[in-house]
Amino acid sequence: MCGECGCAGESRTIVLAQKVLAKNDHLAGHNRAWLAERGAVMVNLMSSPGAGKTTLLESSARALAGRLQLGVIEGDQETALDADRITAVGCAVVQINTGTGCHLDAQMVANALARLNPAAGSLVVVENVGNLVCPALFDLGEAARIVLACVTEGGDKPMKYPHMFRQADLVLVTKTDLTPYVDFDLDRYAADVRLINPAARLMPVSAKTGEGLASWCEWLLRLPVPG
Amino acid sequence: MCGECGCAGESRTIVLAQKVLAKNDHLAGHNRAWLAERGAVMVNLMSSPGAGKTTLLESSARALAGRLQLGVIEGDQETALDADRITAVGCAVVQINTGTGCHLDAQMVANALARLNPAAGSLVVVENVGNLVCPALFDLGEAARIVLACVTEGGDKPMKYPHMFRQADLVLVTKTDLTPYVDFDLDRYAADVRLINPAARLMPVSAKTGEGLASWCEWLLRLPVPG
Repeated sequence: MCGECGCAGESRTIVLAQKVLAKNDHLAGHNRAWLAERGAVMVNLMSSPGAGKTTLLESSARALAGRLQLGVIEGDQETALDADRITAVGCAVVQINTGTGCHLDAQMVANALARLNPAAGSLVVVENVGNLVCPALFDLGEAARIVLACVTEGGDKPMKYPHMFRQADLVLVTKTDLTPYVDFDLDRYAADVRLINPAARLMPVSAKTGEGLASWCEWLLRLPVPG
Repeated sequence: MCGECGCAGESRTIVLAQKVLAKNDHLAGHNRAWLAERGAVMVNLMSSPGAGKTTLLESSARALAGRLQLGVIEGDQETALDADRITAVGCAVVQINTGTGCHLDAQMVANALARLNPAAGSLVVVENVGNLVCPALFDLGEAARIVLACVTEGGDKPMKYPHMFRQADLVLVTKTDLTPYVDFDLDRYAADVRLINPAARLMPVSAKTGEGLASWCEWLLRLPVPG
């Protein structure tokens, strides 16, 4: 029944949802053009709550220091806890608090981009609201969509939440340091992701041990900067 | 901007969202009355994806066998994976697939209750779509709301997702067997939950080691059956 999330519901709700999504796509196009003009590139990080987006960003900012300028847009229902953590590692941050809201949209990101004022050649990372469902439907104007999935969540998530995985450019399997303590089969997981989205790349990472961090940073450094 | 989820957005969206929520509350009242008439009781299990709702349900069904009749309503975007697991432990199950939808609503649950046909004295457990955001706003007609939060998610979730925790009757801290391997302080977590919701009870559980399982089952057995 949820309007923009496209659930089955009243026809009036669905029509409004389609209009909201169409308007969002239009605004996302504006964000994309604005970033291209600046020569900056943006990625959209999405996951369940607690999959490790902020911790990975902290490690990435440290690893990329001096090589790539990072600006971060933090999406959370409440608090600036994540923004404080990212500020502490030396990145420019704009916090968006969505209140009861379940995702970031292109208008929120447009406002945040204007405040962030990213330099040419810099990378803007959007840390979306922790939610494996609703953010999947909202284009923000990003160059790449990155889904984080931690090993403790279990291996069935690509099948159960296919909309999120279907449009991912990269799936980061996080917290691999916990693999010995949980029932998680990476090969089977990778096969399931391929079934849902054959084009998605998959990378295991652990911010704790540093596994995969170099590959992930290389991937970010190789993102094509527009213009 | 998300209609029913109450995000800031166009005024037309907000008015429609309010109407949708009011209609949902009305239908939830019907579900409550229907269950009271039957002498059955219903609880609503909510959490992030992968917090362990299904695994806890499997263990609970085994522990309660012969003491309490369980019927389960499974909410998932896609697949009947969870329903299959719950059927295997001997419970009656009705699966709801929401497609792109982010939560269960009272109408979906009304339809599922009619199919489940719960007996007098039985417990209906709704396993909501894995999402720590949107399900918080939708009353289903339940007697109690139970939020699961696993130790691997990190301790900041009550502060960052207050709407979900604010209306919980019980917070189950799951996967406590993984506590030695992660940075999670149960006392601090409990204090944060009390700040958000002083009335909520908190219970640490592990389906793997069995910690807390007896207390959780006793809690379920003590739920007041209406009628």
